[in-house]
Amino acid sequence: MKTSRGRFFEDYAVGEVIAHAVPRTLSGGERALYHALYPARGALCSSDEFARRCGLPAAPMDDLIAFHTVFGKTVPDISLNAVANLGYAEGRWLKPVWPGDTLRSESQVIGLRENSNGRSGVVWVRTRGLDQRDEVVLEYVRWVMVRKRDAAAPAPQTVVPDLAPSVAPSDLVLPEGLDFTRYDFALAGERHRLGDYALGERIDHVDGVTVEEAEHMLATRLWQNTAKVHFDATMREDGRRLIYGGHVISLARALSFNGLANAQMIVALNAGVHANPCFAGDTVRAWSEVLDRAETPAPGVGAIRLRLVAVKQAAAPFGLKDAGGKYLPEVLLDLDYWALMPL
Amino acid sequence: MKTSRGRFFEDYAVGEVIAHAVPRTLSGGERALYHALYPARGALCSSDEFARRCGLPAAPMDDLIAFHTVFGKTVPDISLNAVANLGYAEGRWLKPVWPGDTLRSESQVIGLRENSNGRSGVVWVRTRGLDQRDEVVLEYVRWVMVRKRDAAAPAPQTVVPDLAPSVAPSDLVLPEGLDFTRYDFALAGERHRLGDYALGERIDHVDGVTVEEAEHMLATRLWQNTAKVHFDATMREDGRRLIYGGHVISLARALSFNGLANAQMIVALNAGVHANPCFAGDTVRAWSEVLDRAETPAPGVGAIRLRLVAVKQAAAPFGLKDAGGKYLPEVLLDLDYWALMPL
Amino acid sequence: MKTSRGRFFEDYAVGEVIAHAVPRTLSGGERALYHALYPARGALCSSDEFARRCGLPAAPMDDLIAFHTVFGKTVPDISLNAVANLGYAEGRWLKPVWPGDTLRSESQVIGLRENSNGRSGVVWVRTRGLDQRDEVVLEYVRWVMVRKRDAAAPAPQTVVPDLAPSVAPSDLVLPEGLDFTRYDFALAGERHRLGDYALGERIDHVDGVTVEEAEHMLATRLWQNTAKVHFDATMREDGRRLIYGGHVISLARALSFNGLANAQMIVALNAGVHANPCFAGDTVRAWSEVLDRAETPAPGVGAIRLRLVAVKQAAAPFGLKDAGGKYLPEVLLDLDYWALMPL
Repeated sequence: MKTSRGRFFEDYAVGEVIAHAVPRTLSGGERALYHALYPARGALCSSDEFARRCGLPAAPMDDLIAFHTVFGKTVPDISLNAVANLGYAEGRWLKPVWPGDTLRSESQVIGLRENSNGRSGVVWVRTRGLDQRDEVVLEYVRWVMVRKRDAAAPAPQTVVPDLAPSVAPSDLVLPEGLDFTRYDFALAGERHRLGDYALGERIDHVDGVTVEEAEHMLATRLWQNTAKVHFDATMREDGRRLIYGGHVISLARALSFNGLANAQMIVALNAGVHANPCFAGDTVRAWSEVLDRAETPAPGVGAIRLRLVAVKQAAAPFGLKDAGGKYLPEVLLDLDYWALMPL
Repeated sequence: MKTSRGRFFEDYAVGEVIAHAVPRTLSGGERALYHALYPARGALCSSDEFARRCGLPAAPMDDLIAFHTVFGKTVPDISLNAVANLGYAEGRWLKPVWPGDTLRSESQVIGLRENSNGRSGVVWVRTRGLDQRDEVVLEYVRWVMVRKRDAAAPAPQTVVPDLAPSVAPSDLVLPEGLDFTRYDFALAGERHRLGDYALGERIDHVDGVTVEEAEHMLATRLWQNTAKVHFDATMREDGRRLIYGGHVISLARALSFNGLANAQMIVALNAGVHANPCFAGDTVRAWSEVLDRAETPAPGVGAIRLRLVAVKQAAAPFGLKDAGGKYLPEVLLDLDYWALMPL
Repeated sequence: MKTSRGRFFEDYAVGEVIAHAVPRTLSGGERALYHALYPARGALCSSDEFARRCGLPAAPMDDLIAFHTVFGKTVPDISLNAVANLGYAEGRWLKPVWPGDTLRSESQVIGLRENSNGRSGVVWVRTRGLDQRDEVVLEYVRWVMVRKRDAAAPAPQTVVPDLAPSVAPSDLVLPEGLDFTRYDFALAGERHRLGDYALGERIDHVDGVTVEEAEHMLATRLWQNTAKVHFDATMREDGRRLIYGGHVISLARALSFNGLANAQMIVALNAGVHANPCFAGDTVRAWSEVLDRAETPAPGVGAIRLRLVAVKQAAAPFGLKDAGGKYLPEVLLDLDYWALMPL
């Protein structure tokens, strides 16, 4: 058989390294599409001039372009038969990506645990995105629940990786040359520095976007993500297409500009949960909570750790979980990340 | 509070200069998206070779890409709380914009007049778009009706700027090097020269485009225009998203290719009215009227002053206003501009 | 009258060469949009590094970008008043197209035959796409049924061109320098070589895409194809917009990656029929049949001749025609082409 229907749970072995197919050269085209698909306005990724004033040679591609490109390549090998995308950990952006760079991905299987029902299991992978110099630009751990092809297949030995609850500030890697001492707050859009954000402070990002089918499919296809449920309306009984979770991440991150305009680059992904599915017609909003602050060795550059929550429709202000610890039905995303911000 | 909800009428003072946030570097990506979003076919902005034959180093970005980019940056400071976008005047394109250029915007408040109801007022601004060399690429006056935050706030002194009814031909600025003496009419798509257009001549541009939600949102987002009503279906009681007026301008201008293929570059915006709102599902058509003709100092280059009218659905031919001088309900746009055309 | 309503049957004369308007410079923007519009994943057109390993200076534009760009320019002169797009033959890609290239099109009328009803006729044209060096990058024959303006106009002398049933392998033109001896099958996504495909083998490409109005209009506009039926929902009595046949070609070709990941470049179009119309809401799937295999003079490079069939909704596996030889109603496209594949 010439076609692939993707891997099933019993096709993974701890330690195996999977080289994912179809490397991709990025250009100003992907950047323009990113700005058409999401209301992204961070000045550092929007303007070559702003980036130069911050010590970079030009505006890097938005950090989430790198993430989606690397992630998309893993889908045919990791999540084509996934029942659920369960979590992220230990994500770090190690090098900015520039127009002209070519990215490819590889994943190492670092954990396996069959579910008690014997019909599926959890697969943990550590994915790396590499550029044309074979340098790692991004790495993260993801775990997904994957169906078994054959329920009778024997369960593998359970290996659950020991994952850090968050990336330590000392492990953050900053773009070479980054310097915020001449940062232009007026051009960036807000005057708030790292010191202006209090631990525990919560920010309602005000704006909302009602999502269309064409938009999320254009985005998901651009990242060469091939999961059928995003494109084929006949896949679900209700005739709806499930929106790629990364689309919600980018929407929420872009919406967080209003209140976090100076959280310029994502440098670490500590954790992430896609709490409920998102469908076309949903109006996505976002709020953030300040989880931590840290200094960095780069001049004028601090780091802010944020919880970014995406919700839909008429969510209660800052609502997240019910009394039983379960995500509220209107919560789409609960993401924990580090970004860089002027001190 | 970290987020901005935009300025209200009492936040403006005549003479104040507002530096708008988020500079933007444009590339071939924005050009390609412009051609995907609008049926734009003007040869000068489509082909490097055609542009070189006309004395330019390469194809400039479509003049309306410059306009939308500059305009979009002003929205958070000028029109986030606008009730209506009332008009444009004294618009001039001063330099072509090329891929790689970085644009930013600033606006000076040049007029204020509180409405008699005490709940809103009119704000006039002169907006300038600047490139990475701090040279002005575009300037125009716009006035909008803005809500007051507090109806009890005192009215400012009324200042109504004295605006030219149209840009004089002698004030038009032409791209350096422009020369139409070797203009290729066959490649441009039509044989009509400036002298072939009679004053008062009206042209029905024949084609129509039915607009989709995803299209106008992609466009509006690309220009980093953040006005909520364009994106959030929950903002209006009827659940409809209002289409950015500039989207209708670009649609109508692109549709006018059929009959005005040689009106190659917009060099001045004399006036403009968004007569009625446009919504997804509307089929937009356009007609033009020749208002004036002029010579220019550039070899073979003339200027044509045009009224461009966008209408929707089954509009009567060349319908514009009713007996009382009110725009007909199917009229979306009444724009008055100067373009360049071979003599 | 300044506007064009397109040519009618009596406006064509055998031997006439029509220079089509609006040359177009392509960039990374068109490439990114192509990847957002279609699930295209062929490694050679996705990655500069992969292309270099195959002997090319960088990743060429997808062959169908060249096709659509060249085709789009012909629409205002050839098919604006077409009743049907009847077929293709003798199509050959003669040079890869790179970002920065400027394409224009010209067509020679090579056949005419009035229909017996006297109200329309068939027009055959040989279209050539030329780059900025006036070198032909692509050529193909297309025939369309075009309405007469005046049923009383005399019928032209019937000339039916003698067309090859398919392009002979010895007539295939390969990109200069192409070399598959270092081809990376893992990065390409599948391990199947030319020798792994048997004549008559059929491949169900598994995936499906439900098409949205915004998507096909963005695509069709990007190729500057102006046929009204694709954009204007008021053109048909049923209020539906007919999807550009080329959109279905690109969708089906991209879907065929799963099973034909190594069919890297299209080098010839032997034949093609748009069997039934496609509308938004249709879920497009594809299957292929191996028609022929051939060697080429380039190192490690073979050629595979494929039938590519696009179907919609719940089509029976590999269904094509009924007992009477008529295409089944769910068949959208029946395309016959040569692609290059590692030996």
